Amino acid sequence: MKNITVVTGNPNKAKEIEALIGAAVESASLDIKEIQSLSIGEVAREKALVAYQALGVPVIVDDTGMNITALGGLPGALVFWFLESIGPEGILRLMRGSEDRRASVSTCIAYCEGSEVQLFEGTIQGTVSKEIRGGNGFGYDPIFIPDGQSRTYAEMTPQEKNTISMRSIALAKLRDFLVQRSDQVRQRPT
Amino acid sequence: MKNITVVTGNPNKAKEIEALIGAAVESASLDIKEIQSLSIGEVAREKALVAYQALGVPVIVDDTGMNITALGGLPGALVFWFLESIGPEGILRLMRGSEDRRASVSTCIAYCEGSEVQLFEGTIQGTVSKEIRGGNGFGYDPIFIPDGQSRTYAEMTPQEKNTISMRSIALAKLRDFLVQRSDQVRQRPT
Repeated sequence: MKNITVVTGNPNKAKEIEALIGAAVESASLDIKEIQSLSIGEVAREKALVAYQALGVPVIVDDTGMNITALGGLPGALVFWFLESIGPEGILRLMRGSEDRRASVSTCIAYCEGSEVQLFEGTIQGTVSKEIRGGNGFGYDPIFIPDGQSRTYAEMTPQEKNTISMRSIALAKLRDFLVQRSDQVRQRPT
Repeated sequence: MKNITVVTGNPNKAKEIEALIGAAVESASLDIKEIQSLSIGEVAREKALVAYQALGVPVIVDDTGMNITALGGLPGALVFWFLESIGPEGILRLMRGSEDRRASVSTCIAYCEGSEVQLFEGTIQGTVSKEIRGGNGFGYDPIFIPDGQSRTYAEMTPQEKNTISMRSIALAKLRDFLVQRSDQVRQRPT
């Protein structure tokens, strides 16, 4: 079977998955336009299909989003555009006066080696802080407090943040799938 | 030359352009996923390229957006997802306490008959009302007041609304382009 290719501009993502599954993983940078949707699953699914069509090898892509209860689930998979246009400060302004601070952040990893796509999602529940806090991280890190914590992601070290990571949850699901799959391949009569 | 095809689920759009340019226009319904962007020009451009690849005839597509100054330009081309998730009431809630009510609504029509795309944009400046007003129209109509008016789009009859239409502005630009283009074709030495 051909090597799995992680479609990303960040070569560390291929290394991360290589370490996870203990097999060689390629990395490819493709300019795939993401589709409009609030659902990271839908965005990742379409991206995986397009990447597979382009490369013809098993591909892994991912997408990340943030759901804020007081904003009716916005920004969802469109979080990049919120951060790009109004920043985390802007998200706090949108929530001014909202007592309900509940939010979640999620990563969806999509795997495709044909016409079907497997989705692996990890979610961390939490709340939106009332002000910008912390200098680490990026994106929504200075305003997102995971449940059970008093600090935002941006107030944690990268190591601490990694222990409360929706990406790790999604990656563990991917690993289980790939391990089971390779067992099945091995057991298949030749 | 092959007939122009308007890519839309709404056959009235083909009739509208037929009347505008005085020539036969086809209509085709294609499931094209729109790309993520705040810019309706970018969304319409990509949609036109994909539609041309699929059909191989000159195509027309369009996209509509809303820019709200107090929201840093959001929702832009993503307005559908705002209306879908939080509705016009939700947009008013996001703007609670904002004295700056400026906004604009725009339509971009994209024409493609090869690798190049022509964009024709129409914009109406206005303000966001402080409450839902009027029962006509849809989408942002109950909260958008065009400049020079005291009523929202939803408080106008369809005929009144059509006289203050960003779509009409974009269509007039498209007509000028197509007329000039067909003159050039006619004048070309054979």
